[in-house]
Amino acid sequence: MKIVTSVVEMIDLARTCRSGGSILALVPTMGALHRGHLSLLSIAGEHADCTVMSVFVNPTQFGPDEDYLKYPRTFDADCRAAESAGCDILFAPPVEEMYPPGHRTSVSVSGITERLCGASRPTHFRGVTTVVLKLFNIVNPHVAIFGAKDAQQATVIKRMVVDLHCPTRVIVGPIVREDDGLALSSRNGYLTPAERAVAPLIHRGLGNAEALFAGGERHADVLRDAVRNECAQSELIDPEYVEIVDQLTLEPLSLITSSALLAIACRMKESATRLIDNTLLGAVP
Amino acid sequence: MKIVTSVVEMIDLARTCRSGGSILALVPTMGALHRGHLSLLSIAGEHADCTVMSVFVNPTQFGPDEDYLKYPRTFDADCRAAESAGCDILFAPPVEEMYPPGHRTSVSVSGITERLCGASRPTHFRGVTTVVLKLFNIVNPHVAIFGAKDAQQATVIKRMVVDLHCPTRVIVGPIVREDDGLALSSRNGYLTPAERAVAPLIHRGLGNAEALFAGGERHADVLRDAVRNECAQSELIDPEYVEIVDQLTLEPLSLITSSALLAIACRMKESATRLIDNTLLGAVP
Repeated sequence: MKIVTSVVEMIDLARTCRSGGSILALVPTMGALHRGHLSLLSIAGEHADCTVMSVFVNPTQFGPDEDYLKYPRTFDADCRAAESAGCDILFAPPVEEMYPPGHRTSVSVSGITERLCGASRPTHFRGVTTVVLKLFNIVNPHVAIFGAKDAQQATVIKRMVVDLHCPTRVIVGPIVREDDGLALSSRNGYLTPAERAVAPLIHRGLGNAEALFAGGERHADVLRDAVRNECAQSELIDPEYVEIVDQLTLEPLSLITSSALLAIACRMKESATRLIDNTLLGAVP
Repeated sequence: MKIVTSVVEMIDLARTCRSGGSILALVPTMGALHRGHLSLLSIAGEHADCTVMSVFVNPTQFGPDEDYLKYPRTFDADCRAAESAGCDILFAPPVEEMYPPGHRTSVSVSGITERLCGASRPTHFRGVTTVVLKLFNIVNPHVAIFGAKDAQQATVIKRMVVDLHCPTRVIVGPIVREDDGLALSSRNGYLTPAERAVAPLIHRGLGNAEALFAGGERHADVLRDAVRNECAQSELIDPEYVEIVDQLTLEPLSLITSSALLAIACRMKESATRLIDNTLLGAVP
């Protein structure tokens, strides 16, 4: 595995791979890699002969009161994990390479970024779309793989790719979970033992809604209550939102006629860790 | 010359040209072509073996009270002119191809878009950078040629290209003028005969400042007054701004130590036509 930290070198290397006939896949990450990230590398490998994983804790997608400084940085372990998972190129630029002095450009998707996570993180998705477009222009990948846990992010990036005619196909890989159902996240390490013990209630709540949906329930308020009731079993879980929305427009649905995204964000009360999770109701598997 | 109206067809055609080894140049225009545009095609031809001119009156760069609907549309004449000037591909997509329903993405450059023309046209440059990035992704040109008359536009696009790592080199072609000095513009056709008669005062004012600069004058207020005084000879010319700024940051300068951009925008009082012009003071020719 080659480790690249220079933007110019990454551009040259990707160009050489591409002009040599390789199919390139990009897996953008913020590092602190877990099995979820590695599963995306595995998907990348199915679609490409050259897989690039970016490891970049992107400052522009953190709000002023968020965890940019304390976000876990585990570069050596990330390198070992990525290499073991078959990564060909690990791209880890320093912040000054990605945002040199005088940087003034941003990419925004309106509307669908203002709901769900965007309601409490108003500048988050602008940071995400900006850095993803930069990474796309640097690597120029044929395909890019994102995780389904960040469901809104995947929807926003797909929208950007269509709107800006980016020549990259977006693939969304499924959520990877712990044995007890907790969705893998680099932020799970922030949880106190007590929070960690009750965090699987989030996934269990989603499962209850799935079961009701499978039994024919189509009313969003009933399904949302199923999630909220499960989370309410622990006072350590403070739901920020539980929403049922159209997967493309992210508009709230009151009645599900075909498929829908059921998404939840919680604040854990001891560590203030923010966890998200989701499931697709009625989607073709 | 091939005329393409479909985005998908343009993407395919450009990709075929590029993979066949051609160097592609793009000249983005809003049509109503004049000799200024054609001079950019000629520059394009010096750098590429396949020249693409886009003709697209971009709605997102017009403000709600601006001239989007009445902007001159002269498609048949544009096709003849572009072909005569050696254009290989004319790309003229309909608005619904460029902005289909659900389009939500925009590209912004902050700071340098808020001064000069941006002060009176707050959403203009966001529309410009958005459509230019879309055109770049559709055509994927090696070089793109813009006119120097829109000096702020050229600065903003260069900033975007650097910030987003666009794989396109930006070249700025010199202003082309009528014999009496008036900078060519698709909007000159809006002028009343009386306005047209006095419009060259704008360029003459810039020339007066150039002469003072050549004589050693470095105070911005003196140089700006030279422009304003010339324009004041006609009450039909209402200057919106006369500014001397750093060419990259567009920050106002009070004393010119090396080079500077002297830019002017005027509103003509009979037709309400907005004209812009500029010159570089102290730039290496």
